[in-house]
Amino acid sequence: MNNDLMIAPELEVTDWLNTPEPLKLSELRGKVVVIHAFQMLCPGCVLHGIPQATSIYDLFNSMEVQVIGLHTVFEHHDVMTKDALIAFVHEYQIRFPIAIDKAATSGAIPLTMKKYHLKGTPSLVLIDQYGKIRLNHFGQLSDMRVGNAIGQLLSAGM
Amino acid sequence: MNNDLMIAPELEVTDWLNTPEPLKLSELRGKVVVIHAFQMLCPGCVLHGIPQATSIYDLFNSMEVQVIGLHTVFEHHDVMTKDALIAFVHEYQIRFPIAIDKAATSGAIPLTMKKYHLKGTPSLVLIDQYGKIRLNHFGQLSDMRVGNAIGQLLSAGM
Amino acid sequence: MNNDLMIAPELEVTDWLNTPEPLKLSELRGKVVVIHAFQMLCPGCVLHGIPQATSIYDLFNSMEVQVIGLHTVFEHHDVMTKDALIAFVHEYQIRFPIAIDKAATSGAIPLTMKKYHLKGTPSLVLIDQYGKIRLNHFGQLSDMRVGNAIGQLLSAGM
Amino acid sequence: MNNDLMIAPELEVTDWLNTPEPLKLSELRGKVVVIHAFQMLCPGCVLHGIPQATSIYDLFNSMEVQVIGLHTVFEHHDVMTKDALIAFVHEYQIRFPIAIDKAATSGAIPLTMKKYHLKGTPSLVLIDQYGKIRLNHFGQLSDMRVGNAIGQLLSAGM
Repeated sequence: MNNDLMIAPELEVTDWLNTPEPLKLSELRGKVVVIHAFQMLCPGCVLHGIPQATSIYDLFNSMEVQVIGLHTVFEHHDVMTKDALIAFVHEYQIRFPIAIDKAATSGAIPLTMKKYHLKGTPSLVLIDQYGKIRLNHFGQLSDMRVGNAIGQLLSAGM
Repeated sequence: MNNDLMIAPELEVTDWLNTPEPLKLSELRGKVVVIHAFQMLCPGCVLHGIPQATSIYDLFNSMEVQVIGLHTVFEHHDVMTKDALIAFVHEYQIRFPIAIDKAATSGAIPLTMKKYHLKGTPSLVLIDQYGKIRLNHFGQLSDMRVGNAIGQLLSAGM
Repeated sequence: MNNDLMIAPELEVTDWLNTPEPLKLSELRGKVVVIHAFQMLCPGCVLHGIPQATSIYDLFNSMEVQVIGLHTVFEHHDVMTKDALIAFVHEYQIRFPIAIDKAATSGAIPLTMKKYHLKGTPSLVLIDQYGKIRLNHFGQLSDMRVGNAIGQLLSAGM
Repeated sequence: MNNDLMIAPELEVTDWLNTPEPLKLSELRGKVVVIHAFQMLCPGCVLHGIPQATSIYDLFNSMEVQVIGLHTVFEHHDVMTKDALIAFVHEYQIRFPIAIDKAATSGAIPLTMKKYHLKGTPSLVLIDQYGKIRLNHFGQLSDMRVGNAIGQLLSAGM
């Protein structure tokens, strides 16, 4: 356990999809949490990020790894609405929980995106079993690299 | 020239993107016309159909082959709006002309989709230089097959 | 029919695989002939060229389009032998006829490769129904482009 | 450290490529060892296994993860010779060390393949920092799964 790492702040969420109850990071201690930040109209997210998040969701036991999609709308706010996202999630058959990042009262960047200093979409955030942020990456990462990062956290946390 | 084939009916369009002037099929005689019918939230369109339409647009001379995207919204009407499509086209950097199919006064199926008896999205329609429909296919076709179909029309029309 | 085009010279072949009888180009008039020149240890051939030749073989009627693989060994002669090729063709489940280009008495370049001025592997040669060479390309071509080229020949020859 | 696991037996090798000195597993303690067993004429190896082994080789520090290709010829022995393998490795630009499995005095299966009970090619064997076999898999595994397996070993061994 590395004491210098930042504890992942709670997500600021207006709505959740694909989960009966909102998720709280503080209640996910003991699991590795994988946050895939995306926008439904971002090609890199649709072509790479969401398939990768789905691979993670399919491969790992949900008792060990919690995948969360985070819809961080920072452009085209008027069309990437909750209803549009619901249609998108339905059509792409996404099954993991998705949080809708809370819009700021001023400025385009939503609150969680700001808190986590995300530079854009897709971004991948890995949180260890102690709630600490272990990876915060903007852009694409290979499945080999992501698998390795998750595996290291899983093993270290055992 | 096959006299038994159906002349392609004009598209019923509320708006065009990526073209200074609306296109009329009757004014495209002498060109092969490729219509890629899609919905912006249809995964098969985004992952296969639009990349294929872009390949056609990039490969062929626009004096010989006219690519038209046709946004045929038959579900999720409230979120696949013109504004949403504009954002989608911008993010995916689509450059060929796109027609927005006109909603019916009753029923979910828009007018052009109905006229052409399209079964869903993606659909590919090929129109020869005489304005006749030579292919009307629902689902995916390989690039080899589509390239062959266009090549046959180009050569026959010379 | 273009009178300026070169009539495809006969292949110089030591052996054929996947055909009960040797093929002669002069006896294939009326068909489009697709020659995929390859070497079994050429990555671009294995990863791109042979799958493309297989797509052509699978898509077109063999009465209209004859696919021929041409094993043009110009390097590593001692290991890309007939026996090695037989094992390769078996493992990769290639079903179209394959001609083994005849080694020159001096120099690394085999006879057919020299006659056709092939620059390397993979190369694609298209011959029309009159026996004339219509395309002679070194390197990769997209399926859309190859499908179009074959379609144009098929339609023009009808 | 799991005391029930089998210590990986030494490889039985006639020749090595891409290494100035033969590698001994007993001298690799402290590293994770990834053995990709392949045959140069096996399509699943060429299309999936070798690119995956190359991804591993490129991603991980060679002080932590040692990738070894193992050429386990159990069919077409007469054409998958050392010379053929050298040409293959050159053409595919493989850079990690490759061991040539020693042919048995009787039977088609080479000695290392027999020792490790490999069922065919491609096979992937993971050995931990204590020399114990942690994975022995015939067929394809996703990069996500392999990355995770290596990551777990790396983290556990620290």
